[in-house]
Amino acid sequence: MQINKEEIRSGNENLREAHKAGFDFLANTLSGQGVDVNAIVQRLADFQVAIPSWALGAGGTRFGRFSYYGEPSSLEQKIQDVGVLHALTQTAGAISLHIPWDVPEDYKAIKEVAALNDIVFDAVNSNTFQDQKDAVHSYKYGSLSNVDKAVRDQAIAHNIEVVEIGKKLGSKSLTVWLADGSNFPGQSNFQTALRHTEDSLKQIYGVLPEDWKMFIEYKPYEPYFYSTVIQDWGTSFMLANACGEKAFTLVDLGHHLPNTNIEQIVSTLMMKGKLGGFHFNDSKYGDDDSTVGSVKPYALFLIFNELVYGMKNNPQNPYPAWMIDASHNVKDPLEDLIQSLEAIQEAYAKALLVDQDRLKAAQLENDVVQCQEILQNAYRTDVRPLLQRARLERDGALNPIQAYRSMGIRQKLVDERGRHSVASGL
Amino acid sequence: MQINKEEIRSGNENLREAHKAGFDFLANTLSGQGVDVNAIVQRLADFQVAIPSWALGAGGTRFGRFSYYGEPSSLEQKIQDVGVLHALTQTAGAISLHIPWDVPEDYKAIKEVAALNDIVFDAVNSNTFQDQKDAVHSYKYGSLSNVDKAVRDQAIAHNIEVVEIGKKLGSKSLTVWLADGSNFPGQSNFQTALRHTEDSLKQIYGVLPEDWKMFIEYKPYEPYFYSTVIQDWGTSFMLANACGEKAFTLVDLGHHLPNTNIEQIVSTLMMKGKLGGFHFNDSKYGDDDSTVGSVKPYALFLIFNELVYGMKNNPQNPYPAWMIDASHNVKDPLEDLIQSLEAIQEAYAKALLVDQDRLKAAQLENDVVQCQEILQNAYRTDVRPLLQRARLERDGALNPIQAYRSMGIRQKLVDERGRHSVASGL
Amino acid sequence: MQINKEEIRSGNENLREAHKAGFDFLANTLSGQGVDVNAIVQRLADFQVAIPSWALGAGGTRFGRFSYYGEPSSLEQKIQDVGVLHALTQTAGAISLHIPWDVPEDYKAIKEVAALNDIVFDAVNSNTFQDQKDAVHSYKYGSLSNVDKAVRDQAIAHNIEVVEIGKKLGSKSLTVWLADGSNFPGQSNFQTALRHTEDSLKQIYGVLPEDWKMFIEYKPYEPYFYSTVIQDWGTSFMLANACGEKAFTLVDLGHHLPNTNIEQIVSTLMMKGKLGGFHFNDSKYGDDDSTVGSVKPYALFLIFNELVYGMKNNPQNPYPAWMIDASHNVKDPLEDLIQSLEAIQEAYAKALLVDQDRLKAAQLENDVVQCQEILQNAYRTDVRPLLQRARLERDGALNPIQAYRSMGIRQKLVDERGRHSVASGL
Amino acid sequence: MQINKEEIRSGNENLREAHKAGFDFLANTLSGQGVDVNAIVQRLADFQVAIPSWALGAGGTRFGRFSYYGEPSSLEQKIQDVGVLHALTQTAGAISLHIPWDVPEDYKAIKEVAALNDIVFDAVNSNTFQDQKDAVHSYKYGSLSNVDKAVRDQAIAHNIEVVEIGKKLGSKSLTVWLADGSNFPGQSNFQTALRHTEDSLKQIYGVLPEDWKMFIEYKPYEPYFYSTVIQDWGTSFMLANACGEKAFTLVDLGHHLPNTNIEQIVSTLMMKGKLGGFHFNDSKYGDDDSTVGSVKPYALFLIFNELVYGMKNNPQNPYPAWMIDASHNVKDPLEDLIQSLEAIQEAYAKALLVDQDRLKAAQLENDVVQCQEILQNAYRTDVRPLLQRARLERDGALNPIQAYRSMGIRQKLVDERGRHSVASGL
Repeated sequence: MQINKEEIRSGNENLREAHKAGFDFLANTLSGQGVDVNAIVQRLADFQVAIPSWALGAGGTRFGRFSYYGEPSSLEQKIQDVGVLHALTQTAGAISLHIPWDVPEDYKAIKEVAALNDIVFDAVNSNTFQDQKDAVHSYKYGSLSNVDKAVRDQAIAHNIEVVEIGKKLGSKSLTVWLADGSNFPGQSNFQTALRHTEDSLKQIYGVLPEDWKMFIEYKPYEPYFYSTVIQDWGTSFMLANACGEKAFTLVDLGHHLPNTNIEQIVSTLMMKGKLGGFHFNDSKYGDDDSTVGSVKPYALFLIFNELVYGMKNNPQNPYPAWMIDASHNVKDPLEDLIQSLEAIQEAYAKALLVDQDRLKAAQLENDVVQCQEILQNAYRTDVRPLLQRARLERDGALNPIQAYRSMGIRQKLVDERGRHSVASGL
Repeated sequence: MQINKEEIRSGNENLREAHKAGFDFLANTLSGQGVDVNAIVQRLADFQVAIPSWALGAGGTRFGRFSYYGEPSSLEQKIQDVGVLHALTQTAGAISLHIPWDVPEDYKAIKEVAALNDIVFDAVNSNTFQDQKDAVHSYKYGSLSNVDKAVRDQAIAHNIEVVEIGKKLGSKSLTVWLADGSNFPGQSNFQTALRHTEDSLKQIYGVLPEDWKMFIEYKPYEPYFYSTVIQDWGTSFMLANACGEKAFTLVDLGHHLPNTNIEQIVSTLMMKGKLGGFHFNDSKYGDDDSTVGSVKPYALFLIFNELVYGMKNNPQNPYPAWMIDASHNVKDPLEDLIQSLEAIQEAYAKALLVDQDRLKAAQLENDVVQCQEILQNAYRTDVRPLLQRARLERDGALNPIQAYRSMGIRQKLVDERGRHSVASGL
Repeated sequence: MQINKEEIRSGNENLREAHKAGFDFLANTLSGQGVDVNAIVQRLADFQVAIPSWALGAGGTRFGRFSYYGEPSSLEQKIQDVGVLHALTQTAGAISLHIPWDVPEDYKAIKEVAALNDIVFDAVNSNTFQDQKDAVHSYKYGSLSNVDKAVRDQAIAHNIEVVEIGKKLGSKSLTVWLADGSNFPGQSNFQTALRHTEDSLKQIYGVLPEDWKMFIEYKPYEPYFYSTVIQDWGTSFMLANACGEKAFTLVDLGHHLPNTNIEQIVSTLMMKGKLGGFHFNDSKYGDDDSTVGSVKPYALFLIFNELVYGMKNNPQNPYPAWMIDASHNVKDPLEDLIQSLEAIQEAYAKALLVDQDRLKAAQLENDVVQCQEILQNAYRTDVRPLLQRARLERDGALNPIQAYRSMGIRQKLVDERGRHSVASGL
Repeated sequence: MQINKEEIRSGNENLREAHKAGFDFLANTLSGQGVDVNAIVQRLADFQVAIPSWALGAGGTRFGRFSYYGEPSSLEQKIQDVGVLHALTQTAGAISLHIPWDVPEDYKAIKEVAALNDIVFDAVNSNTFQDQKDAVHSYKYGSLSNVDKAVRDQAIAHNIEVVEIGKKLGSKSLTVWLADGSNFPGQSNFQTALRHTEDSLKQIYGVLPEDWKMFIEYKPYEPYFYSTVIQDWGTSFMLANACGEKAFTLVDLGHHLPNTNIEQIVSTLMMKGKLGGFHFNDSKYGDDDSTVGSVKPYALFLIFNELVYGMKNNPQNPYPAWMIDASHNVKDPLEDLIQSLEAIQEAYAKALLVDQDRLKAAQLENDVVQCQEILQNAYRTDVRPLLQRARLERDGALNPIQAYRSMGIRQKLVDERGRHSVASGL
């Protein structure tokens, strides 16, 4: 399965005129406000988000899973799925692998498939929250934080193996989501668990190649329901500092307690040079892993406002690794991801429209009303023509969902793979 | 203080051309999608939101209050403030009084001031959450739910007096926000408190004129921190049913537990014909009473989507009473209210753009992706030209905040009233 | 596997003296306060809690499941597990079946096993949140609320079948947990879904035998993450009223938004005669399904305080059906259930100690400090000797966890069933 | 007003026998379990909690305040109130002053009053969240974080003045609760605000005497409702590290988002040697400032479990400063504080009963059930006789609430001070 660029181009034809009119009108308006429209289009085009290999099949809950049709059942197929997304949106030029679900059998072949699809390998992810079939030790009571050194060693070795696999693929970073925690008061000694975790992370950090980064994720709860070892950004930040310069905090939007001001966390981390990675999704209740921008698009915009600010003003912070981390329980996973990519680009475009100079001036005068006007003026702008232009210039689809449907992609995948193929992963 | 329409008109001049271009482009686009743009502009113009008299001065928290300048210190001045808002926005054509803060001394004079400002009297509000100076009984341990009949009787009598005042002003509804609750487990017998409350409400309901409505507000906590007698919509709904056909539930956006799906509550109440009133504000943590649309504009849109649906499909539900119920701690209260009015109109306009027929079709096919596309397509549209047109046609300001500032209204109010005037109320 | 009463008795021997001393001291103290200790012991003995068949194996999360050893793999074995619990605790004399996981093959044989274990059949539970292998229609987009009548009919028929099965076993109630909801704004029309649900429930209600009850569960979220059709007690209560006298609301402790005052809901429902069933568990974040009393034991006590009050003062409310609904991810399920049963009995005993007359008097005087003293005095009492006495008199174990361990029950189950037996269900 | 020890002693007479029986039975039981009862009684006696001067009058909410009778209207009277508490409970031997509410006029005289009441001066608290009458600059838009250097300098100077006052009184620590934050997105630049705050804190830190500590409080929201500069422990910890060895984080139980695992934060901070101070209160919804232990006593126990652990195992952490920080809206403030002190002692006593060695062993074996049993065994113990014994040995009251009432203390205060005296402060 690979998308024919010509088909995208011809699909764009009947939308092109309307797009041109909308873009011209918007560009004219924005230019009149002093906005460099071309620069924004360029930044949108440059913005690439990794797709995690496990998000290409249907997700589920503890109460069950309703499968989808034509799921990719091999790493090659997963890369092809990302290729489809990238061809249509021009903003999904990377895949993030999960080990052991995605161990390549033939590295050379896999890299060729990726290159053919214009896809690079982003951060590699370890898995110590499930027991593998051949595992000697169980992670039921934790992995990097386990009271038993043998278990910790197994988990450390697994992470090191993941780095090795990543090296062969051209990845440059390792993401550690440590699910470890406890379900009941008393089950775990917090200090012991934290100390073990720090030790384990340092051992993994020790084998990291010079040009790699380690991302340390945090999460307040789930899959454990009383405590999580790395429960918040403060803990992750502390651990990253303990490990060293190549260790960073990773922010996943769904990994926060109710009402958390996430944008402030983002801002603090960038100021400290420690925001390494970012996982996009949306949620109403917990770590719902809903489509990006489907529940709280303004919050997403506010977060991007801090990201844009930090990328400009915080040279101490590396360019973050972007990834979608969502679950697709009732939608076609590829359509869901297209909607997520669109929402990310929309929030980014609106954040780029914020007039930072006027905002700063208003802040210095405590003109709160004006500050809000400036943010809302950017947010209320219909930026879809800018997103379209960025795609159009690179032969992406003006309307990716519509293109995906009119090209019958899902049906083609089902034809190729069979109706009841099952994606490895969750 | 009264605004000169001519001044607004002339202030619009330099914005008129840009507005026209923007409106024409949008109207053209929307018409192409089958939208009746004029009908939407008309509905926006018809949508009037009441301003509560207590929202015209600076608000505060339990930790203190930072006052604002030129606050209205009489009912007449409050009406004039609403008049300013209405002149600029053409969408604030009503005031909601709070008794005992706003008892008119001269009803005829007050009604003339209101008429002069094109303002009608919306729901009247009783206050049994504070002790008045001359009160015989204290509400410290509750009012309509108090264990002491004498206290309940005082609170009932107060509500009846509020109705009497409202009748003289032309109000047609009474809003009962019952703050009653308890701070500690055991303090209150839930069943007794609820029974007393039902009895008290029925007595108040008994004196309601035939063409009046009674709105019963609910709230989970604050000012009491363990329990509130009318803690949720279910309790309010039960009480409204017990009272009768003229009793309704009132939804205040800030009166919900974290993550509540408010739009679903709105939908259920309208289906049952029991959504009587609506208090707009926004919040991130609790009943923050922030500017409408400043924190969760998409949630507001989703709520309006249900309101629009209900107003069309639920003839069993009366047209709801709209009011802003916000607090202004760091902004000029009038500017804050202008921003709220704008956000309300924006959400309403976007909800009117939702293609209900296509949405229904997509829902019947369980095409979840398409359902989301339809909502987001409406939401992503920049509807500001529609709002401007609705105002322009009635001699409101194209940009109300800018007009308010360039006309120097706050300074004029300070000049008239003095810098340190204090609004009665909270 | 069946427990030898003699073994329990002899296991109690070395604890008996300490128990007697503790009980005598406590009984003496309480009697001095006017408490009828024997009556309390009797009420504890009478209090029986159903064990759900699905809670006898290890639970899991969407991220995986760590299995336990010797899980029951047949209905007969599940009943035997409950028999073990009941023999030890004398408070688990019922099992609640889940269809289709627990359809008996031989009703007579199953009833004999139950009788042998002194176990009755409590509420039967339907399952329309998962697709069964042979299902014609999928519940992916809902069951009783589905837009498609064929799907609704299938779900209705399933519920009716569940009633039929229950009738053969001697059950007297049907619990409907309707997971139906939506993951994204727009996916579902709230009013249509609610109307379909009401229609479907009425059809099920229509076949209910005269002496049966129907319990309607509510839950704000999970497994759907934007909306749930029956999202709160208000909606369940409305539906129960629409169905009729035999329909009731079921409260599951984990099915509430953060900070909900559950005891107040319990109180209101009992006053209205509509509290039908109760599912015990505990939680810190969401529907964690943790061991009862492991996180918020005081909240459990406050809830029991309302239950005790209602059982005494609300003859309009039937005696509720009690069930544990917890998940066992890191503990031996049987030990976990023993801890839950102990916590329930503890909360119940403490609630029985509340001096209702003095509490009422203090409430009437608004003596808030005294109200709190009365509750805390009951709560701070160490009631374990009362629980022990209730068990001891019925040949249960003085210390059930210790007895379970010293009798080597888990090992016996593994020996009988094999190490890797898997319980049907979640 | 000062309490006559003889009166307390004679009031204890009729309770002494029952106490002795209860204590002997409990001591006997605990000794049998290897507990050193006398050591626990001694630790309870040693545990002293500071009373904040502002908690001695009635508190209120933004909706109003219901005053109490006989409130202390001078610093001298406040110290006397704490003296009353200490005489009765023997656990309130310190007062925490708030400047500018409590600036002594005559230091010598005030210190004599304190000495007479056996009260020492705990941490002094600065106030930059309200404008004082003679203030040159307003804190409306922040203090230590303000964009205006002049405002920051005023706030810094105020803190330095507070230290000066504290030095004269014998205080050894400064508590900085920085309310600074913003109400709306865009109002504040997070990075600028944080940088200013760090600079300001360092300046204050610079004048700290060698033997002083600085406590940096955190809070997620209120009185600002979009962001707070020091929003969580991570931020406070970062700032404390930036300031130096004498700077510490202060944990206030009410200053957390819903469902936060506070005990884990406590544990982490102690491991890092940075838990400086602790503010006790309880809450159901937000920063409710309810009586300690009135809502979540088990959570308090779990926190004390970590405190006890840390005090034993973390020599790197100084002995924390304990204070109650509650509000008294519907209770007599002194009775409320007595209930808080009792709840603190109870939680502490239960935590001291936790068998740390067995707990550690169970944790190492991942015997989760046993871990829970150990905690619950301690928690379920009725420790009131231990608290009584600690008081009795120091001539405190066996039942402080009852003693306070039977001695008619409130009436005496009213007689001395007048019914409508008003406490300075909130």
